[in-house]
This record gives sequence, C-alpha cells and structure tokens, in this order.
Amino acid sequence: MADAHDQAVMDSVESYLSEILGAIRPLQSVELTLADAQGTVLAADVTAAWPLPGFDNSSMDGYAVRAADVAAASAGSPVTLPVDAEVAAGDTTPHTIAPGHCIKIMTGALLPAGADAVVPVEWTDGGTSTVRITAPADVGHALRRTGDDAAPGDLLLPAGTRLGPAQIGVLAAAGHGTVRARRRPRVTVISTGNELAEPGQPLVPGRIWDSNSYMLAAAARQAGCDTTRHPTLRDDPETVLAAIETAAAGADLLITSGGVSMGGEHDVVKAALSKLGTVTFRKVAMQPGMPQGFGLLGPSDTPIFTLPGNPVSAFVSFRLFVLPAVGALQDLPAQREAHRQARLSEPVRSPAGRRSYLRGILDSRAGAVTPLTGQSSHQIASLARANALIIVPESVTSLPAGQTVDVLELP
Amino acid sequence: MADAHDQAVMDSVESYLSEILGAIRPLQSVELTLADAQGTVLAADVTAAWPLPGFDNSSMDGYAVRAADVAAASAGSPVTLPVDAEVAAGDTTPHTIAPGHCIKIMTGALLPAGADAVVPVEWTDGGTSTVRITAPADVGHALRRTGDDAAPGDLLLPAGTRLGPAQIGVLAAAGHGTVRARRRPRVTVISTGNELAEPGQPLVPGRIWDSNSYMLAAAARQAGCDTTRHPTLRDDPETVLAAIETAAAGADLLITSGGVSMGGEHDVVKAALSKLGTVTFRKVAMQPGMPQGFGLLGPSDTPIFTLPGNPVSAFVSFRLFVLPAVGALQDLPAQREAHRQARLSEPVRSPAGRRSYLRGILDSRAGAVTPLTGQSSHQIASLARANALIIVPESVTSLPAGQTVDVLELP
Repeated sequence: MADAHDQAVMDSVESYLSEILGAIRPLQSVELTLADAQGTVLAADVTAAWPLPGFDNSSMDGYAVRAADVAAASAGSPVTLPVDAEVAAGDTTPHTIAPGHCIKIMTGALLPAGADAVVPVEWTDGGTSTVRITAPADVGHALRRTGDDAAPGDLLLPAGTRLGPAQIGVLAAAGHGTVRARRRPRVTVISTGNELAEPGQPLVPGRIWDSNSYMLAAAARQAGCDTTRHPTLRDDPETVLAAIETAAAGADLLITSGGVSMGGEHDVVKAALSKLGTVTFRKVAMQPGMPQGFGLLGPSDTPIFTLPGNPVSAFVSFRLFVLPAVGALQDLPAQREAHRQARLSEPVRSPAGRRSYLRGILDSRAGAVTPLTGQSSHQIASLARANALIIVPESVTSLPAGQTVDVLELP
Repeated sequence: MADAHDQAVMDSVESYLSEILGAIRPLQSVELTLADAQGTVLAADVTAAWPLPGFDNSSMDGYAVRAADVAAASAGSPVTLPVDAEVAAGDTTPHTIAPGHCIKIMTGALLPAGADAVVPVEWTDGGTSTVRITAPADVGHALRRTGDDAAPGDLLLPAGTRLGPAQIGVLAAAGHGTVRARRRPRVTVISTGNELAEPGQPLVPGRIWDSNSYMLAAAARQAGCDTTRHPTLRDDPETVLAAIETAAAGADLLITSGGVSMGGEHDVVKAALSKLGTVTFRKVAMQPGMPQGFGLLGPSDTPIFTLPGNPVSAFVSFRLFVLPAVGALQDLPAQREAHRQARLSEPVRSPAGRRSYLRGILDSRAGAVTPLTGQSSHQIASLARANALIIVPESVTSLPAGQTVDVLELP
C-alpha cells in the first residue's frame, strides 16, 4: 500500500537527472598553466598554430643522404660517401648536402637541405669522415616531414576535452604554456546529525562515526574537484541553514548528507532548506537512494544536493547524480552512461517500481558479476568490496543466475 | 638484416616487466589521516574492532513495537498504542517499551529494549501521544541488527587495497581516524635534450617544445604519485648525471626521457648512467618503445626508468612498465593486465617480432576499435585522440578488419 503510493509520486532516475543537468550552468573559464590544467576540461578548441613537427627531421640516428646516391648500395657492394658534417638534435645551424656527400644526423635533428632520406647507422660502418653504406634507403626513409602530425589550423583538442596526460602532452608539444579551461569545481561536503562522532574518537551506544563526509569528499576529489569537508553539524535548523549559506558563498557545489528522511521535525536539512523555496525534495524510483533533494542556493545559484544519510544511498546518489553535475559545471559534453554487460552468477531480487543498484564484484575477463551479501543501504562494508553496481530495471522483481544485466563499474 | 639482429637480442615485454618488478622493494608504510590516505594502498589488513552497526537501530522513521502487539493491525481494524517517548538518531538515553506500548523512533536511532520491530510512519497516523497502526510488522521489520554489516574481527579491507571513496568510507564508519598505508611515491621526471624549449616560449627551426616531462609528470600524478618535474637538461653527461643523482636522493622513482637512442656520443642519459653500472639498457620487442633502460640508483637503490624520447614511445613505456612499478612501490598485488577485446573496424599492420601498441578509438558499446591514422612514435596528436591501445602480437604482421583483438584502455 505504502509502496503503491510511493510509486505514484516518484521521479525516474532519468527525469531527475535531466532536471539537475538542465539547472546547472558551466563555470567560468580561466587560463591555467599545464601543471595546473591536469584533470580540467578545455573551454575552447585548441588548434595547431604551427605545423607539428615544425621542421623536417630524422627519426633515427644515421646519415642524411640523397636517396639516389645510395640506391646501388648492398652488403656485397657498399657505397662509400664523404661525411661533411654532423647535425645533432637541437642544432639550429642550416646545413646542405652536396651530391655524392652525406651528413651524419641524430634522431630529431633538422634535416639538411638537399637530403631526402636517412640511412640508419645500423646499415653502415658508423664512419665519421667517410661512411660505408651497405643498404639503399628509399626517398623519405627515416624522415618525419613538417606537419605530418598536425598542420597549422588542425584541431588538436576540441572544447569539452578532459585533459589527461596525453592531452597535456599534445598541448606542450604544440607550444601552449597555458590553456583555457574550466576552473576546477570547488565542492563542500557537509554531514548533519546528532548521532555523528569523528572517526578515531570514542563512541557511546546511539552514536556512530561519520563516514559520509569523508566518503563524499573523497568521491568529489576523485572527480577532480577542490574539495572541502565541513565539520559535522548537529541537528539544529538555524545552525545548519547558516552553515549551508556560508558554504554556498565559497563553493561551486554543495553536498549535504542526512536530515532528509520522512519523519518531519528531525529532518534538519529539509527543515532548513524548505524555507528558502529553491530546493525541492522528492522521491526517486531507485534503491538505494530514494529520498533526494536538489536546488540552487544563494546569490550565485550554487547547486546543492541533499543526499540521504545512509552511506550506500549517499554513495550511489553521488555516482548517479552528483558526478554528472560536476561534469556539467565543467561543461563536459553530456553522455549516456557506458554500461558494461555481464552474466549474473547468482539470482537477485529487487523491489517493484524501483531501479536497484546492487553491489557486486565484476569479473571482466569472465564476463560475470556476483552480487554481494549485505545489500541494505547502511551496509558499507559490502560497498567497500564492490567494484560494480548491478542494475535491475524498475519493472523487474527478480532475475535468475545466468541472466545478462547492465553493470556500472566503480572507479 | 638489422631487424633480424634486433630480434635476436630483444627482451619480451613480459620478461622485461618481470625483471623490473623483481627489483623493486615496497615503500615504508606510514600512518595517514583519512583525508591524506585517499589513493594510497593499505599496508596491513583492517579488521572491525567493534560490530558494525554498533547497536540495534531503526532503518526507518516510525514506531518501535513488540511485533506481537501489532500482529492484528489492518486498515479496516487498526491497532492503537500509547506512545511513551520519542528517540532520535544520536540520543543515548536507554529506553524500554512496556507490553502494549510503543516509542516513536527515527532512522538510525537506538532501538529501545523490548522492541523487536519498527512500524514505518507511513503505516500509521503519525500520532505523538497515541498512534493508530494500520498494518502489522514482522519481527525484525525495519531493524538493523548489531553487527549485521561486520562483526568484530571481520576483515574489512585486506592489505594491498587501494583506498577509493568507498574504502575511505568504511574506514571512517569503523572508527579509524588514521590508517597504515604506503607512502605516496615521490616521482621526479627529467627530460634531456639540447633541442628542448619550454612551451609558451618562441622556437627556432631545429628546436621543439618539451612535451614529455609535462606528459609523464601528469601520468605519474594520475597514478597517485607526488610528482616533481625537473627543468629540462641540456646534453651534457656530467650535468645530467649530477642532476639525476641529486634527484635520486629525494625521490622514490626517477623517470628520464630522451638520450637513449643508438647513435653513441649524443645519447647523454646512456652515457651518464653507463658509468655507474647499475642501469642496464636493452631493446624490448615492442613498438613503439623499443629502447628501454632500467636500474637502481644511489644509496637508496632508487628505481630509474630511462624512457625513449619520442612522446608516444615514452607514453606507452610509462603505461606498460612505470605504472606497474609504481604499483610495486605501493606493494599493490601484481595482477595481469585486464585487456578488453574488440573487433577491428579497419585492418592494421605490425612489424614482425615486435608487439605493437597502436593508438585507437574504442567504442565499448559497439565492441569495436578503430585504429587512428598517424601511428609513428613522434605523432602525439593522434595519441591525444586515442582512448585505447590495440595490441598486435609479435608473431603477427597484419590483421584484417573484423578481427578480434586485445585492447588496453587508457584512463
């Protein structure tokens, strides 16, 4: 009966996420050094201003030649050429080879004018005044031509690219000392609850150690955010509202956990924010994580997520809703979740009308996923063992072993 | 001819990696706060010192009852019970319910003695002095029992676990304010070469912007290391050796790039390190990345990798050899690479006797991978577009479109 009522008013995961993504505006772009830019998202296309490589150069250590001069070379009948000079990587003096001559050249060195091939040192006697060449080199052999990686104007990285090591590398290779990217989102995480104690401190029955703020701060940090963990707050609406409003002024995104269940006066986050009218609370047709709240706060319309207090609910909610919101702040192109598929190694059950996200261990090689025991939303020990979430659709209440299911890998 | 010679003396990727992993000793373990521990690797098993949860509590907002007292409740014939008290999350006062009575209870609150079930508020009129209950609750309904997540002595996280958000969460939930983990590896990255200029500075022909040190520093940072990028060094063996020895004293791992090709006097890194006798240079049967060097340096036996100077060679070498070495420093259990499989959307070629790692774009949903154009080892623009490396075995020189291949996903 209660379930039937719940279903009638619940949002789907997709509609809730759409609403969130529709409300979030990307952060301003800033100019970042390459060292600071790692993990951020490009705010504008980056094109090549110069060709890459910038000049014809050798891809091997050897001898720059005219290919015609070594066409007849063989082991039985080597060609011997005078070596006029030597050019190393970094040498900027222009050289020219005369017909029938050669220049010793190192990997990456500027190709002398007149040369159209490099004979690798391994095909020679390595001579310095003259060199014996025992194999021919075709025109273009061991050469890297100007612009063969990118021509001026070529798109190197489109706006919306997240800058990993390879992208940082191409920016540097193309001469960019700085780059226009979205500021790293500043995220503040706040746990509320009279029951919360600091890990490492002694407990009395009725109290628990706060895990959500540590877990959510770590998740936000993993998502590339500059993250602040606010000290836990007691269940007092005025205190909570004041702390949230102060935090909103210095953050690009706020996350609270706890204080949003269905019981009324003790739901301190709901009580504090309901007055403002810009944060809405609703049920989402999922398990764990049904009670959700989202809105915009303060003069800068800072997005706020009020996540449920159960640790697994908070974790799954972060993964499904907050992580895409962080992407939206960075103007990362929205993309459908890339679910893997795997065979269930054991049967599972799921409530009607709610999409389940069950903790599991995915064996990618075997293409199999095993649901863990301990699927209640307070059971964080099984969460720490999981490497994937098994998705059971809303319409399904049980699945047999062997069934293929969508899984969401955990980073 | 040269190829035949090369193959005779080349190491396989596996034998080279085994040699590296066999030489590396794990870092000392240290006590880290939870905020500092993210991304590090546990140095010892973590077991539960107390049960999780630490006390019987309610999983919902509702009324703590004796199940027998509400067994007859129905919508048509509700049961009304006096409400003796209210207990919220965080309340530490012990309560007891008398037969035929109940206590209002919030999610996470300590279960009163005598109660064996919680009736959700949704099944009641929400009363405060008396409550009308319209459905029965079985024994155990909406209860979380002491230790149902973990019992004292249960293994929560084994040594060798990398601490992500969920693992940080379970450590906090179990009361650990600090944790014994491996120190974050300190990595120093050094590029050498007279040709190198700083990105953002003007260039003359013959010079290139240094990309490797930025790219490799970013890769080490992504792997969880505290990373220092050394200013680029000119090709002078004494300068290079002095810089490397100084860096070795303050790092857990050194990475150089460049200065290790086959031409002799200009191979400054090889020249500088060969004197020491503890770094060996060899060819590995792969492409890109054939010329490799590895050894231990200085009084602390600091591991050093001398990576090739071509950016793609350096990147692939980092992924195949340095990344597992970082794992070994952290005492992360060695594990076989989890290759995905995908169908080639275009044919590929590969040199005989060398394993190719070709840049590609993997479409996980379609199970297809498309090799990129621009596979030379200096072509970093295509690397920045790739999300996977296509692996072509040593014995294979060409593969047709449609062939299933192993791919290594890039993070």
